[in-house]
Amino acid sequence: MDSEKIDYLARLWIMEAAAKIKQSFKETLDIDVKSGRNDLVTNMDKETETFFVEQIKEHFPGHRLFGEEGMADSVTSLDGVVWILDPIDGTLNFVEQQRDFAISLAVYEDGVGILGYIYDVVRDELYFGEKGKGASVNGKPIPKIDAKRELQDALLIANLSVTRKYPSMWEAVKASRGLRLHGAASLEYMDVATGRAGAYLSANLAPWDIAAGKIIVEELGGIVTRIDGEKINMLEKGSSIVAAPKIHQTLLDNYLP
Amino acid sequence: MDSEKIDYLARLWIMEAAAKIKQSFKETLDIDVKSGRNDLVTNMDKETETFFVEQIKEHFPGHRLFGEEGMADSVTSLDGVVWILDPIDGTLNFVEQQRDFAISLAVYEDGVGILGYIYDVVRDELYFGEKGKGASVNGKPIPKIDAKRELQDALLIANLSVTRKYPSMWEAVKASRGLRLHGAASLEYMDVATGRAGAYLSANLAPWDIAAGKIIVEELGGIVTRIDGEKINMLEKGSSIVAAPKIHQTLLDNYLP
Repeated sequence: MDSEKIDYLARLWIMEAAAKIKQSFKETLDIDVKSGRNDLVTNMDKETETFFVEQIKEHFPGHRLFGEEGMADSVTSLDGVVWILDPIDGTLNFVEQQRDFAISLAVYEDGVGILGYIYDVVRDELYFGEKGKGASVNGKPIPKIDAKRELQDALLIANLSVTRKYPSMWEAVKASRGLRLHGAASLEYMDVATGRAGAYLSANLAPWDIAAGKIIVEELGGIVTRIDGEKINMLEKGSSIVAAPKIHQTLLDNYLP
Repeated sequence: MDSEKIDYLARLWIMEAAAKIKQSFKETLDIDVKSGRNDLVTNMDKETETFFVEQIKEHFPGHRLFGEEGMADSVTSLDGVVWILDPIDGTLNFVEQQRDFAISLAVYEDGVGILGYIYDVVRDELYFGEKGKGASVNGKPIPKIDAKRELQDALLIANLSVTRKYPSMWEAVKASRGLRLHGAASLEYMDVATGRAGAYLSANLAPWDIAAGKIIVEELGGIVTRIDGEKINMLEKGSSIVAAPKIHQTLLDNYLP
């Protein structure tokens, strides 16, 4: 695949989508209910995904797009080039807070993550990772994750469903520096990427929540698996633990089944 | 008291202190342990408080300052004019994340909160409230808190110690739109002030954590009490619940002892 062309256009589209999202703050948000009150979909989600679908169809007719809103064809394999998009990760934050949400975009080739972009729209921070070439935020290289960092030296991020499902996680939280919860998976992946947190655990995430974050974090030496330690299949929903290497091991060995 | 002079100087000092704090990001932080690992004190905390103590002594020799770092005289009454300062609220976020912390400054006269300032240093957002005159962020008025807002329409913020001490809070979280946890009380007060959250509960806060936030939130029609519904004594540590009026009532009636 033509990574340079993809990279150039991906950044352009992300910035164009973000501009529209920011503009929408001034308008009244028209909110539907998808599956439950906590899974709000706004017009902006759908519009943003449709925008990417159309652009990719025009510029890369052989590529496919796999996204939260299902505006493209359904994807049942990762053969060839597949774009994985969450047009607004942290929709609830978008609606309730108008901050702490992101555009998450990844490009996979034959199942391998090649390019990952996470754009924190309100903070104007673009995280980027490219397989084998490291990761950056707004063009500034992000240092490697400290491989020796211990649980007691780091903040933890964990969803409620994790702490309820695995009560031993309370002990992990107590052993850590403290718990945080921001409510946008891609940005919580970036908290681990930058060392703002030592680990982030979630009981149920979709491929588009983590596709870009996984590329970026792995470029920095972080570990991404299911909560049982298994490899993640990027076509399926499931649990996720992303962590500094030693903290990942400690959580799996001492606090998770 | 001369509110205009105080307001002019308070803003000047906050901005000067913030500039020094931002500069310190480039230097290595020299961290001591105060009481436990989670209660880190950095040089910046102490330096910032000392800076305010000196300025107040020079410009308002009759005023007293009540602060986290204890760099001023101890305050056992709120007679006269008392400044209440948390030089860096969210010290752990400051150290671990270099974001999501604030300078919190309040001016009380004979026990009544008159002026409140909370400066989110990294986002460059200055929240301000003045008794009887409303509240603003970066000079833009903040709309009143929706008095009819219900628990199921809002995000909740609660510290771990709250959810462990009052297990029924889990039910409140489930009834709400979801849980968030940012780890800086003054900014979590501002989440309620701006409607980003419907309520914030904490099991143990100090006067300097909430002195400014209480003034700002009350100007907007929000309710601030102890978790048992009692009035807060600004000389004592204790629990805190800050919420939109109806949500405050719902939490007290249905989810708290």
